[in-house]
Amino acid sequence: MSQYTENGTAKGALSNLTILDLTRVLSGPFCTMMMADMGARVVKIEAPGTGDDTRAFAPMRNDSSVYFANLNRNKRSMTLNLKNPEGKRIFLEMVKKADVVVENFRPGVMKKLGLDYETLREINDQIVFASVSGFGQYGPYSQRPGYDILSQAMGGMMSINGQPDDPPTRVGAAMGDILSGMAVCIGILSAINARSVIGHGQQIDVSLVDTISFSIFAEVLRYFETGKVPERMGNRYAALAPYEAFAASDGDFIIACGNQKLYETLCNKILKKPELITDERFCTTPIRAAHYQEIRPYVEEWSRTVTVEEGVNALLAVGIPAGPINDASMLTKDPHIAEVREMYLPHHHPVVGDMTIIGNPIKMYDTKPSVRTPAPLLGQHTEELLKELLNLNDEEIRALSENGAL
Amino acid sequence: MSQYTENGTAKGALSNLTILDLTRVLSGPFCTMMMADMGARVVKIEAPGTGDDTRAFAPMRNDSSVYFANLNRNKRSMTLNLKNPEGKRIFLEMVKKADVVVENFRPGVMKKLGLDYETLREINDQIVFASVSGFGQYGPYSQRPGYDILSQAMGGMMSINGQPDDPPTRVGAAMGDILSGMAVCIGILSAINARSVIGHGQQIDVSLVDTISFSIFAEVLRYFETGKVPERMGNRYAALAPYEAFAASDGDFIIACGNQKLYETLCNKILKKPELITDERFCTTPIRAAHYQEIRPYVEEWSRTVTVEEGVNALLAVGIPAGPINDASMLTKDPHIAEVREMYLPHHHPVVGDMTIIGNPIKMYDTKPSVRTPAPLLGQHTEELLKELLNLNDEEIRALSENGAL
Repeated sequence: MSQYTENGTAKGALSNLTILDLTRVLSGPFCTMMMADMGARVVKIEAPGTGDDTRAFAPMRNDSSVYFANLNRNKRSMTLNLKNPEGKRIFLEMVKKADVVVENFRPGVMKKLGLDYETLREINDQIVFASVSGFGQYGPYSQRPGYDILSQAMGGMMSINGQPDDPPTRVGAAMGDILSGMAVCIGILSAINARSVIGHGQQIDVSLVDTISFSIFAEVLRYFETGKVPERMGNRYAALAPYEAFAASDGDFIIACGNQKLYETLCNKILKKPELITDERFCTTPIRAAHYQEIRPYVEEWSRTVTVEEGVNALLAVGIPAGPINDASMLTKDPHIAEVREMYLPHHHPVVGDMTIIGNPIKMYDTKPSVRTPAPLLGQHTEELLKELLNLNDEEIRALSENGAL
Repeated sequence: MSQYTENGTAKGALSNLTILDLTRVLSGPFCTMMMADMGARVVKIEAPGTGDDTRAFAPMRNDSSVYFANLNRNKRSMTLNLKNPEGKRIFLEMVKKADVVVENFRPGVMKKLGLDYETLREINDQIVFASVSGFGQYGPYSQRPGYDILSQAMGGMMSINGQPDDPPTRVGAAMGDILSGMAVCIGILSAINARSVIGHGQQIDVSLVDTISFSIFAEVLRYFETGKVPERMGNRYAALAPYEAFAASDGDFIIACGNQKLYETLCNKILKKPELITDERFCTTPIRAAHYQEIRPYVEEWSRTVTVEEGVNALLAVGIPAGPINDASMLTKDPHIAEVREMYLPHHHPVVGDMTIIGNPIKMYDTKPSVRTPAPLLGQHTEELLKELLNLNDEEIRALSENGAL
């Protein structure tokens, strides 16, 4: 039974919500992508002419961005010049029909446009006004330019990521953008619920750097408690061993002995060295963790004799957590992740052509997230949305266009 | 003006929701922590005797876990033996009063307990039943033991994280648990909203490995498009330069020239070498990115002459994104992140004593997330909750206790 369909016909979980989406690049569009997958009516409002910068982000095909195509599926695009008085008027009219406004401009831009929360709530007190930015809407750094790498650097992530001899190392994906995109989504959905608690919408403020620092809470708590600055440990957890990557004959794989019982099973059934259980260097989890370098050769004496597949299968058969280290090639062919969990879906974009799109990891059994429509061309739905939301006629739309509002 | 108060008095955004929380360790408790910060009534249901394993997780103080104290603030704890028929009956009675059941057992455990979604929805069709697990509720790996490191390995994260000469490297925080905890929170809140769309609750299934693979979407898209397996690049982005860490006289700091204009400003105003703008190795963003090694010496010729603070200030003054690389010590003293954004809050736990708790990064202006009560002792609120939710009297509670149900 498929839990995730490419062409969802059932109603989406958020199909009662209309979102005016002013976001660009990654953090905001990542949030609204998740909401659009769940059926929200996402109106992507773009600047006339160029639109979202990621329309030109690599990888490109047929002069169209595959990156943009993934992040903006299920959304419709309209162009609107918010600096034009008529464009601004149209936006305010749409706010009356919307549940959510999301933006990721630098703090202060919405106010300068005359579109801050104080203005919008006068028009629609149910509106949820969500902002995501590098450093947040208030505080001494709020006006600084925000980039993912700065949030990883300043939020402490780089200081704990990498091998022990490495310099502080950026996580190889844009975790500041992704974590903050998810956090602002949680904020928006909580504020939607809160309308039934407090009777109105509200403002939400999420920053990349706050969210990154939130995600390394365990390392920060250890620092507060011990006074010792956490260092880069490569693949190790401080408290467990063997619990990292080990060499097989054809690559590396993970063995995760999360507790004493699993270690004993490893010694008895895999390494066939029961004497290691009582060895004074390894006899308890904390003692063993302190001697993790010394346990490695015993494990690799075995693991080097097997392939990754043989090793993982042997360990799983006796209940020891183990797995391969997948690169993108292996990951995208994995029978569980790619096929059954449907994380990679065939997709057709009118300009890009046939491509693979990334599936949604939130499996909702009665309102399946789905990829229904390809990412929009710039302004593809301007006319459709103006008619649908504001009942404008062709002449009114033509006038707006001639006025430079669209 | 403080946007986040330690002792919130206003109503929380989720204060109309009751959550039966069967989760242990990190992914599930991270989700319910966020919901409890927003005022949800979180009933943490623990096995009699030991409770959540993280009650013994380092760092410990006074035999009490600081880690647990952070993750379980604002929750109440009751013990309940779900294998005991009376314990199970009590749980089913509570389901009638609840909005959400969250669990992170290995798939199949809830069914074995007679507490699967099919059973619970017969009792309360509005219930949202959310599961988070290593590999998800269905698929060939669903019965495998799931640990954060396995999700990072199998989900592709390790393959793209680290310096170019490193082996595949685990992210230094438990990103599989954290991302999936946030994803299941989004799923729950969406399903709460969906009750008004479809008229009933539903089942939600989130896995660590799906969520990790979702988070590296950009790298996977690049692989699909180019056929080239993405490699570890340390702190670099493939498409931009200079955009990484550079040496100052007293440490490293980040310079992020996200576009051509910023690069030109760097050459003119900081490096004072306008000839680098037209240098054929550096004249456009893609050409410069291909020659990132050659631009480094020009930047460091300047950056080594300044301190981190001087360098960052000089760059920010001319509008170039820049920032220090904070470790836990610097992060937790940062005037913006720690003080104004309130990411570290003074807190008193009855056993641990005075500690610092990690603040919530989702700033909601009218329903402030807050830390109201310390993490509960095991079973601290069993009696209180049985009275509050089920109107049991002292005698009935004593009988349950003698029966072994609590």
